[in-house]
Amino acid sequence: MRGIVLVLNAGSSSLKFAGFRATGTGPEPRFTGQVEGIGATPRLIARDAAGAVLAERRWAGAEAPASVAEAVTTVVRGIEASLHGQPILAIGHRVVHGGTEFAAPVRVDAGVLAALERLVSLAPLHQPHNLAGIRAATKHFPGVPQIACFDTAFHRSQGWVAETFALPPRFYEQGLRRYGFHGLSYEYIARLLAAEDPALGAGRLVVGHLGNGASLCAIAGGESRGSTMGFTALDGIPMGTRCGQIDPGLVLHLIDALDMTTAEVSDLLYRDSGLKGLSGVSQDVRQIEAAGTAAAEGALAHFAFRVRREIGALAATLGGIDALVFTAGIGENAAGVRARICEGLGFLGIRLDAARNAAHAPEISVAGAPVRVLVRHTDEERMIAEHALAVLDADGG
Amino acid sequence: MRGIVLVLNAGSSSLKFAGFRATGTGPEPRFTGQVEGIGATPRLIARDAAGAVLAERRWAGAEAPASVAEAVTTVVRGIEASLHGQPILAIGHRVVHGGTEFAAPVRVDAGVLAALERLVSLAPLHQPHNLAGIRAATKHFPGVPQIACFDTAFHRSQGWVAETFALPPRFYEQGLRRYGFHGLSYEYIARLLAAEDPALGAGRLVVGHLGNGASLCAIAGGESRGSTMGFTALDGIPMGTRCGQIDPGLVLHLIDALDMTTAEVSDLLYRDSGLKGLSGVSQDVRQIEAAGTAAAEGALAHFAFRVRREIGALAATLGGIDALVFTAGIGENAAGVRARICEGLGFLGIRLDAARNAAHAPEISVAGAPVRVLVRHTDEERMIAEHALAVLDADGG
Repeated sequence: MRGIVLVLNAGSSSLKFAGFRATGTGPEPRFTGQVEGIGATPRLIARDAAGAVLAERRWAGAEAPASVAEAVTTVVRGIEASLHGQPILAIGHRVVHGGTEFAAPVRVDAGVLAALERLVSLAPLHQPHNLAGIRAATKHFPGVPQIACFDTAFHRSQGWVAETFALPPRFYEQGLRRYGFHGLSYEYIARLLAAEDPALGAGRLVVGHLGNGASLCAIAGGESRGSTMGFTALDGIPMGTRCGQIDPGLVLHLIDALDMTTAEVSDLLYRDSGLKGLSGVSQDVRQIEAAGTAAAEGALAHFAFRVRREIGALAATLGGIDALVFTAGIGENAAGVRARICEGLGFLGIRLDAARNAAHAPEISVAGAPVRVLVRHTDEERMIAEHALAVLDADGG
Repeated sequence: MRGIVLVLNAGSSSLKFAGFRATGTGPEPRFTGQVEGIGATPRLIARDAAGAVLAERRWAGAEAPASVAEAVTTVVRGIEASLHGQPILAIGHRVVHGGTEFAAPVRVDAGVLAALERLVSLAPLHQPHNLAGIRAATKHFPGVPQIACFDTAFHRSQGWVAETFALPPRFYEQGLRRYGFHGLSYEYIARLLAAEDPALGAGRLVVGHLGNGASLCAIAGGESRGSTMGFTALDGIPMGTRCGQIDPGLVLHLIDALDMTTAEVSDLLYRDSGLKGLSGVSQDVRQIEAAGTAAAEGALAHFAFRVRREIGALAATLGGIDALVFTAGIGENAAGVRARICEGLGFLGIRLDAARNAAHAPEISVAGAPVRVLVRHTDEERMIAEHALAVLDADGG
């Protein structure tokens, strides 16, 4: 197969995209970009694989794409024009929720789309935009295979014991489960480590995807065994603006005793909590570190405390760990946060090398430590491109 | 001081009581009992310290105590008559919530009672009954010191980092914190171990109070460093009928997508979840073990999984542990559950001795294991009696 695999990640006000050239050894990155500010003052930027700007654009007035669907049309037209006749082999879409049905990437047809529509209530903030992206891309390229790749799929291996809540079984049957998210990132990291070192890839890992959204995943033998995220993207560790785990009784108290509506509670827990809520400064760790206030210091201390707590929890479900892996924005770049998280984890076999950590080295544990501590760049777009090519291969395409 | 310390634990439909004789070496148990079925068909039973029945009673019609307050009056009258003139030195009351203000037992006066009233919204299912018990006892014994002892007080040492939720600071200031409960039980166990072995008492412990209500506590140097329970008694590990930790987004989903009222959600999460909800059999581990159904087996497996997970989490906050202690109904009596919880915790240094565990031995780890695993009987009533005597002593009484 020769040609390009497009990857689209459509959100509420942004569209991320990437292009990969199909080669015999997997997808090769060609370009990446995003449209931000959709619905307000959208702006596009695209770069080549080396980071050089390929295109930059702002729109004014009626020309501006007013929706994610319009942004998809604008972007795919622009990409098509720049490909000089190279065929688009497939378009891979990031879809947040695959529910209980989709444990692997799938080629989208009308039946699949209808099934994904039924999952909108499980992820109302993300799923509608993901599906709007698929529809817009299908309209523009009716003959090109559209492949849906799910943030939940990688976790379907975790099993009932990890996945159920302690509720009557009818809720589990109705799909009220600990799905887990960030699965494309965890799958990418699991495959990367297995390719680097098959013994490590077969071992017990805790991977921290610490970005603006954040979670941790327990992996054994390359498969997810559990995650800190539950039914929604709210649960688990504190995030940029999300609360992470809180007492279910607290949610009821906010409604019953403080007279908040569920919409107000949702806004509070999704948008005004986490690092931003605690610090009163920002959701961005760099700005919080720079602020140096007591609240900012507290936000970082609490974040590290909760992450450390969950590393212990996931280690207990794996019976101990062979490696701890940091990835995503905070995980890859915030040496101070990594150091705080690892404080006191010597009992697990974790021993950080301060100089390596400060240098963001690929391995930041001391030589010979029982547990390796690694920093790796995650690449969800590349994972989607690999999935899209694999689905094409399996279809004999 | 010579005389009797009474202990009262007033719930929604039950009143537990106990009597201790004050001695130079602390309280000595004399009798214990309870009134159950208050509001329906109440029945009383009282036993002496050896377990022999001292009194047994059922009421019919208008004579039956119709409220917890009436039950208190009935019980204290009966006790008074049986004391043959021995003085009642103090009455110690179990109070679920001491809020942010009460970090230690306190002698109740009008100001304290008003402060405790203001905490009702933090524990609406328990606090009103606790306070009704204090009022009824004060009315009957106006000259006897009433000492309130709090389930939250022991955890006030855990500090802001463990106690805060990742919400804007105004919520913490308003008292929306991870209080933790079962503090009288944890304090009793911490003191018991310190008396047995001062080095162990100064060490790092995870204590599992696994009863119908259940939680785990991290203790270092005899002080609480954190608990699995949060703002209410719902959070943490699954319990007899309570859900334990669930995704805050799931609570919103039950209301918004499944059209449940907050009262229905509260009923579901407090009364129909946990071991009872999952097993469909009972909240009682013995009955669940006997049922042998797939759902019953799943309930036990999930319970053990979640407890194991939280042992790892609390160990991470302590930097490793020196001992794991099981207490309360399940913790003291369910050898099978203890064995399942400890499976895979070898990385922490936990190695169970199967025969000792089956025999409910005081120490159930193998000889020489790095982490001692202990089984201890908890005695919250005795802890309250000790507190009551200490408050009297401090008051110069």
